[in-house]
Amino acid sequence: MNNKKGIVLLSGGLDSSTSLYYALDKGYEIKALIFDYGQRDKREIDLAKSIAQAAGVEYEIINLDFSWGGSALLDKDIELPQGDLEREDIPLSYVPSRNIVFLSIALSYAEAKLFDEIFIGANAVDYSGYPDCRPDFMEAFQRVADCGTKSGIEGRPIKISAPLLKLKKSEIIKLGNSLGVPFDLTSSCYEGDSEPCMKCDSCLIRERGFKEAGLEDPIIKR
Amino acid sequence: MNNKKGIVLLSGGLDSSTSLYYALDKGYEIKALIFDYGQRDKREIDLAKSIAQAAGVEYEIINLDFSWGGSALLDKDIELPQGDLEREDIPLSYVPSRNIVFLSIALSYAEAKLFDEIFIGANAVDYSGYPDCRPDFMEAFQRVADCGTKSGIEGRPIKISAPLLKLKKSEIIKLGNSLGVPFDLTSSCYEGDSEPCMKCDSCLIRERGFKEAGLEDPIIKR
Repeated sequence: MNNKKGIVLLSGGLDSSTSLYYALDKGYEIKALIFDYGQRDKREIDLAKSIAQAAGVEYEIINLDFSWGGSALLDKDIELPQGDLEREDIPLSYVPSRNIVFLSIALSYAEAKLFDEIFIGANAVDYSGYPDCRPDFMEAFQRVADCGTKSGIEGRPIKISAPLLKLKKSEIIKLGNSLGVPFDLTSSCYEGDSEPCMKCDSCLIRERGFKEAGLEDPIIKR
Repeated sequence: MNNKKGIVLLSGGLDSSTSLYYALDKGYEIKALIFDYGQRDKREIDLAKSIAQAAGVEYEIINLDFSWGGSALLDKDIELPQGDLEREDIPLSYVPSRNIVFLSIALSYAEAKLFDEIFIGANAVDYSGYPDCRPDFMEAFQRVADCGTKSGIEGRPIKISAPLLKLKKSEIIKLGNSLGVPFDLTSSCYEGDSEPCMKCDSCLIRERGFKEAGLEDPIIKR
């Protein structure tokens, strides 16, 4: 243990699970925050709980109203983007300001409960092009934490850590594999069925990552 | 009308009500967001609704879990700070990262529903010393909105406006008076009883402001 307390934003996906195991490996006492924000994949929440339990950490479910919607991840009437990893625009799966809201709530929780650090699994290499997963956003949010909170003003700023930010998906998978992340419990598919659709961006990015890492994805039935 | 759509964070207090009337005066089409976050003053929400109705604007109640607490404004077991407006530390009425969370949710709402601007009644002169009411925080949050959202990246950044930021309380009261703010519907007392306690920071700041403005406060029974 390093005597520091960390919050991990845990979604049931591969990246947040790897960031959880990364923080544990660094010796943090961890609390996982799991957001129930009306995502179309309800299974995600159960998976996140299972991953927290597998890792032996406490978790808390945060209920959040995102009913104003505007994303294919929230609204089944909006079609999920499929199969174009080379596109340059921001896809319809983007949930407006989602990471900003999640980080803000984690920051409040961290201030109230005296946590030192917040871990988020954002990464800016093999990703879907979301603006709130990039280094300049992380820096801007750190500035908010530094100057907009009591803890920051009083010289105990809460650190925002995105340890996977600059890793390729294959590197995240290799890291997670070395840390013992239970990949079989994770889900990446936007559709949220028990079988991955293998058509949405997220499935395709995961498939390519495992291939490049030279590993087998345990959630793929063969 | 100026053909722009604005969100106003409305609490039932004097500052947010004045920022609502300010934005209407500037010609914005306004939606008020009212946060029900477990505040000890439940009356606040009804007052905010009445003020929105008096102003003739639509509103939406956002339910938010702040149960991790840590503030005298949420937890009746924590005593409210009283009567020391010269103190320099941050008082126990501070709700951890509250404005950060409110602004984040408003930002998400604004992105999803295509609003141009968010108005917050924060002010940094006659206030209780909260870190999330100061100019450098407002600048830091604007940077988050600029670089962490789809709208910002695509060249339609949502503006964060705090029109009262550098006004004294007496100046806010004069401005509100000139704009027709229904001060009789506003409440500033942290205790949340129908009669202001006249002991908490917020009552004392309001009392001094009306006195300096040379106006009578309609909520004070004489």
